[in-house]
Amino acid sequence: MPLEQYVLGVDSGGSGVRFGLAGATSGTPVTSPVVSTSPVRTGPGGIDAGHLLEQLLPAAAELTGRVGGGAPVAVCVGAAGMATLGVGLRARLPRALADALGVRRLALATDAVTAYAGALGPRAGAVVAAGTGLIALGTDLRAWRRADGWGHLLGDCGGGAWIGRAGLEAALRAHDGRPGGSPALLERLEAVFGPAAGLPGLLYPRSDRPAVLASFAPEVAACAPADPVADGILREAARHIAQTALAACPPPDGTEALVALTGGLLKLGEPLLGPLRAEVSRQVPHARLVPAAGDPLAGALSIAAALASDTLAFPDDAHMLHVSGCQAR
Amino acid sequence: MPLEQYVLGVDSGGSGVRFGLAGATSGTPVTSPVVSTSPVRTGPGGIDAGHLLEQLLPAAAELTGRVGGGAPVAVCVGAAGMATLGVGLRARLPRALADALGVRRLALATDAVTAYAGALGPRAGAVVAAGTGLIALGTDLRAWRRADGWGHLLGDCGGGAWIGRAGLEAALRAHDGRPGGSPALLERLEAVFGPAAGLPGLLYPRSDRPAVLASFAPEVAACAPADPVADGILREAARHIAQTALAACPPPDGTEALVALTGGLLKLGEPLLGPLRAEVSRQVPHARLVPAAGDPLAGALSIAAALASDTLAFPDDAHMLHVSGCQAR
Repeated sequence: MPLEQYVLGVDSGGSGVRFGLAGATSGTPVTSPVVSTSPVRTGPGGIDAGHLLEQLLPAAAELTGRVGGGAPVAVCVGAAGMATLGVGLRARLPRALADALGVRRLALATDAVTAYAGALGPRAGAVVAAGTGLIALGTDLRAWRRADGWGHLLGDCGGGAWIGRAGLEAALRAHDGRPGGSPALLERLEAVFGPAAGLPGLLYPRSDRPAVLASFAPEVAACAPADPVADGILREAARHIAQTALAACPPPDGTEALVALTGGLLKLGEPLLGPLRAEVSRQVPHARLVPAAGDPLAGALSIAAALASDTLAFPDDAHMLHVSGCQAR
Repeated sequence: MPLEQYVLGVDSGGSGVRFGLAGATSGTPVTSPVVSTSPVRTGPGGIDAGHLLEQLLPAAAELTGRVGGGAPVAVCVGAAGMATLGVGLRARLPRALADALGVRRLALATDAVTAYAGALGPRAGAVVAAGTGLIALGTDLRAWRRADGWGHLLGDCGGGAWIGRAGLEAALRAHDGRPGGSPALLERLEAVFGPAAGLPGLLYPRSDRPAVLASFAPEVAACAPADPVADGILREAARHIAQTALAACPPPDGTEALVALTGGLLKLGEPLLGPLRAEVSRQVPHARLVPAAGDPLAGALSIAAALASDTLAFPDDAHMLHVSGCQAR
């Protein structure tokens, strides 16, 4: 009986990196992930391949050491910013992993692709990743379609910063006596940030303004059951999220598409999810809203396992999902 | 016959400072303004009184020299940020102007107050100052009422950055295939900023993001006559502007209030001003929309003249309009 073979999955994001090991045939994790709280640096050449390798190689050694296995036969790296900042990774990682680990199959994916693979697996549909921002990625398994993800000033409609910003605007409308104001949200604004007059001075000097705005989204959700203005904000957010899912989802072709929502926005609970279910069934009637099956690390592991068995069903794309055979020097 | 007496007006803003001289009785300018393109510095102690005086004293000497007059008998300084950053000016300017010029009457006003005085004079109503941002100031001549002016993330609803941001969002909706998109605005976005995919990289690293957003507002106005999405954005802006004017305007009391719009947003022309006239007459029926009679420097001169003749009709307010008798050492 041959030794079991393993694949490595990597989920690199703004708050750190997670590394997982799965069976090469099953794609099922065989041990708990190695977690680094040191986000991979981004420099003038994009995501820093050297900094990623410094973390990846020891993590791979630890994971395979735990299960007494050999080097992984395939690797999938999912990283935030891969589409626009992945040039260095695409240039250096194939050779480096072949040299260090003998890896011959490598997939470099943007985090939205690993989120998709984790949430829905190799099936047609759309995944909406919603935290501070909001982006949807869809596929008919022939090409990828992206919608929104333009950031807090240009879009990310219905995401955490969008909801929090709308809630703060409604609070300040109440403060000024303008229509559309919510005294309940004004009370929450003052409880969280202090007197309304001081809020601009707290917010605008910050470099993490979208996160500050998004921090108010749970207050909007908490007010929604008793406050029609807050409830209206979440209903409009749900309308935007469904619009974005619709734009990314493959058009009706007689088969059922799946739509999943992933990310921290789920924590807002029923005040958002109730309207969202209604909007998705109204706007995207050919799709079914399903819970995400797994997270982006699970998605990276499933892509790596599909690479190992030559069964990858997702479309190759220079920016979204780049597959390379690796050759050692 | 006594010699003619003069008053000095100062309009200090983000792009520089203007100094004017008027007859103390009439408040009418007697010579053209002295213009400095060096904005008064703001430091840890707020607006830098020393830096203002360095410019004010030579300007006052030049202006009075031109007309062969003595030192001004009253001064009004209108400055952006006076309400929140005027501590140093309020502490130092009365004594400094008494010592240097023998000035005994001084008013320190926020730029919204001088804009009000210039636009409407000492009458009840509201003035909406709309450029990149948007703020309304109103008075019944007993107290000031402020509305909006919360900046591009919290409000400034209907202002230049608001309109430009909404136009860019509509353009990107068209790019993604989301509802509410405008192909005409997408065409303008690409003509101005290049490919849509590059816009986040152009916008987010800038420190003058509101100005970048506002730079797209004229494109929205240019598209509005032929594009229903752009037209809808301007109609919604007009609705917001009228709401803000209503919140600042004194409530109906049987007399007619005046509402004026000032600032660069006027340049958008009929696509905005048509809907705005309709919204003001619908939402603020007790007010009449009038053109601004004069600019903030004219307002500062009229306040200084009213100080000189002891006829100031505007309400004194520690932050908005602070009047002090000046005593020399």
